[in-house]
Amino acid sequence: MRCEVIAIGTELLLGIIVDSNSAWIGEQLALSGIDSYFQVKVGDNFGRIEASIRQALARSDAVICCGGLGPTQDDITRDVIAEVMGVGMQRDAAIADKIRRIFEARGRVMSQNNLRQADVPIGARPIAQMPGTAPGLVCPVGDKVIYAVPGVPSEMREMMLGTILPDLRERAGQSAVIRSRVLRTWGMSESGLAEVLAERMAQLDQLGNPTIAYQASGIDGIKVRLVAKCKDEATATQVLDVEEALIRRLLGDVIFGIDEESMEVAVLTALKAKGMTLAVAEEVTGGLLAARLTAVDATMATFRGARIAAVPGAEAAGLAARAVAAADAARREFGSTVGAAAIAGPARQAGGPITAPVVLAARLGDRRQQEEIILPADRGRLRDFTVISLLNMLRKALTA
Amino acid sequence: MRCEVIAIGTELLLGIIVDSNSAWIGEQLALSGIDSYFQVKVGDNFGRIEASIRQALARSDAVICCGGLGPTQDDITRDVIAEVMGVGMQRDAAIADKIRRIFEARGRVMSQNNLRQADVPIGARPIAQMPGTAPGLVCPVGDKVIYAVPGVPSEMREMMLGTILPDLRERAGQSAVIRSRVLRTWGMSESGLAEVLAERMAQLDQLGNPTIAYQASGIDGIKVRLVAKCKDEATATQVLDVEEALIRRLLGDVIFGIDEESMEVAVLTALKAKGMTLAVAEEVTGGLLAARLTAVDATMATFRGARIAAVPGAEAAGLAARAVAAADAARREFGSTVGAAAIAGPARQAGGPITAPVVLAARLGDRRQQEEIILPADRGRLRDFTVISLLNMLRKALTA
Repeated sequence: MRCEVIAIGTELLLGIIVDSNSAWIGEQLALSGIDSYFQVKVGDNFGRIEASIRQALARSDAVICCGGLGPTQDDITRDVIAEVMGVGMQRDAAIADKIRRIFEARGRVMSQNNLRQADVPIGARPIAQMPGTAPGLVCPVGDKVIYAVPGVPSEMREMMLGTILPDLRERAGQSAVIRSRVLRTWGMSESGLAEVLAERMAQLDQLGNPTIAYQASGIDGIKVRLVAKCKDEATATQVLDVEEALIRRLLGDVIFGIDEESMEVAVLTALKAKGMTLAVAEEVTGGLLAARLTAVDATMATFRGARIAAVPGAEAAGLAARAVAAADAARREFGSTVGAAAIAGPARQAGGPITAPVVLAARLGDRRQQEEIILPADRGRLRDFTVISLLNMLRKALTA
Repeated sequence: MRCEVIAIGTELLLGIIVDSNSAWIGEQLALSGIDSYFQVKVGDNFGRIEASIRQALARSDAVICCGGLGPTQDDITRDVIAEVMGVGMQRDAAIADKIRRIFEARGRVMSQNNLRQADVPIGARPIAQMPGTAPGLVCPVGDKVIYAVPGVPSEMREMMLGTILPDLRERAGQSAVIRSRVLRTWGMSESGLAEVLAERMAQLDQLGNPTIAYQASGIDGIKVRLVAKCKDEATATQVLDVEEALIRRLLGDVIFGIDEESMEVAVLTALKAKGMTLAVAEEVTGGLLAARLTAVDATMATFRGARIAAVPGAEAAGLAARAVAAADAARREFGSTVGAAAIAGPARQAGGPITAPVVLAARLGDRRQQEEIILPADRGRLRDFTVISLLNMLRKALTA
């Protein structure tokens, strides 16, 4: 089963918008065991969209058209699909009603143009999910199929997950259920992970199910993705549970979270479980740490506060002493159980690339946690890696 | 002149990497007056890359292949291009030497595989810019041309700007120099800008040069892009200077910066010019404001610090009173000339979408600046828009 993706919109070609939809769709197709050999961007031009769809249908079994479903004259995806299907258009009364009601609920006046969105090529089926005013479409062409989804990422995703992926799997004759789980790791290289998991990987190569793949993701760490293909949901969940437990035994606390669980979620969860609170002093990270923590802990019930300033103390006092003092000060200032800080030393070059030392320090009640790491001196990376490293040190100290 | 972009790499189709290179290339082509009708992503597969290049050559005058120039067996862009050109490969001694020296400088051992990167299709010309180990290529095919650039964004950009865009413009018979300038605005809608600039736009439509276009860019405001096409650099700069001055008279302090100049740069520059310093109290923005300011002012010479915490004060005291008190407190705590704060009130819904009131407050010496804005209650957007609105209020107060 092959599926091609066509992203439609002149603003994509002009670089005004980066097409991240195709990448997301490609990932979902891969997880469903469907091949995607080509992904194309094309502007709002009838002839060129038509040529792209016809070519895609010739070399693949299915085509997903993303974008061009809006109400303006530029939005011609519906019309081109009708042309390729060789059919006319018909206004769908239910969709037209839905669009009218959306405008009413928003207290806005609807122009007649908006009803163009309710026009459906004859023989096409609207997609049930419709979070916005643009309906998605399933358009059969012989034994092949064209899907149309809006370019708005959240609307596209809902239709992909709710209708298109299940439809594609059914067409592919897949009665199997495919489920994936991501184990998020920090602190081990990809080759390190591969070494520890080598024996299990070899066993799985024999078994064929589940599969394991690595995905290096910068400051989000290295993701270990488990994919199970089973006869039903319950079996898939069980296979993933068993595999996760096995890999947790091998990797230990290198795993900090599951799926979308970030490092800051792990830290805040651990703090909350112990009834503890946190405050930080930020110098080199200049607010990035607080921004990540407050994005999760909006009410600041667990993360109590941050002071962002140049950390005082004579250079001679040493980085470590200054970092520990800053962590203590943050704890006192905000009256939290835990205080943490990170301070960077001057950049240096010894043969290799330019680096800078960073001291991470934390005070947890009577305990003191401290670590010196060497990071690339490039300021953006230095800041990002300091944030994640300090959070990871806290996480390990809290869960040890 | 038409140029197609082909992004090569299986990881792009699988969504492991989002292809932002094509968007950047598309923008640069548009700025050079070169059309790009199709952009294609294809995996590391000989036949499919070959088919994509042949199709692109058939319907366009030039093709830019991005990626697949590395040293591993997966990297086959060079080989496919040689096949399309109908020629063999030849090792380029100068490039091989350069690669050897890069490895020596990094103190790393070079495997023989790396010299594959020095293999050049016969008749192709290496691109002079070569910041990494992957050489770019200019490969003539009849009166058309294939360019190859690495997928590493910084390397690709250097080659695009240094060789490919000038080469394309020469092929297009453009002796003209095209230069652009972005006037960055905040505080006026796109239709508002269009209304104020309508008369000038009409004049420019007659003149044909320079051109003006709007680009809505979320929390980066709306960009007004001026493009001048002139016989030489000096004339282009003069045309842009004249047009910028004219538009500044029409738009006034809605313009906060030029090209890559962000709102925080504008604020820090204005503070520095007056010998003033800044401190902030962050609640709803939770560190985002400090993170942006410290990204520019690394030594914290002008931006002196931030306190991130739930802002105290009885609900009854009113948002404005609490915001002003927080701004005053930040100024005192960090000993700065200017103190600023933003506090959000509870979300509410009155018919339309859910919103929240945000009070922005600043103390500049004896002056007090204060503003209440209504923002979407969605937390991510509320935070982002509060940051930019507070910075904008500061900028206007400092430059008034």
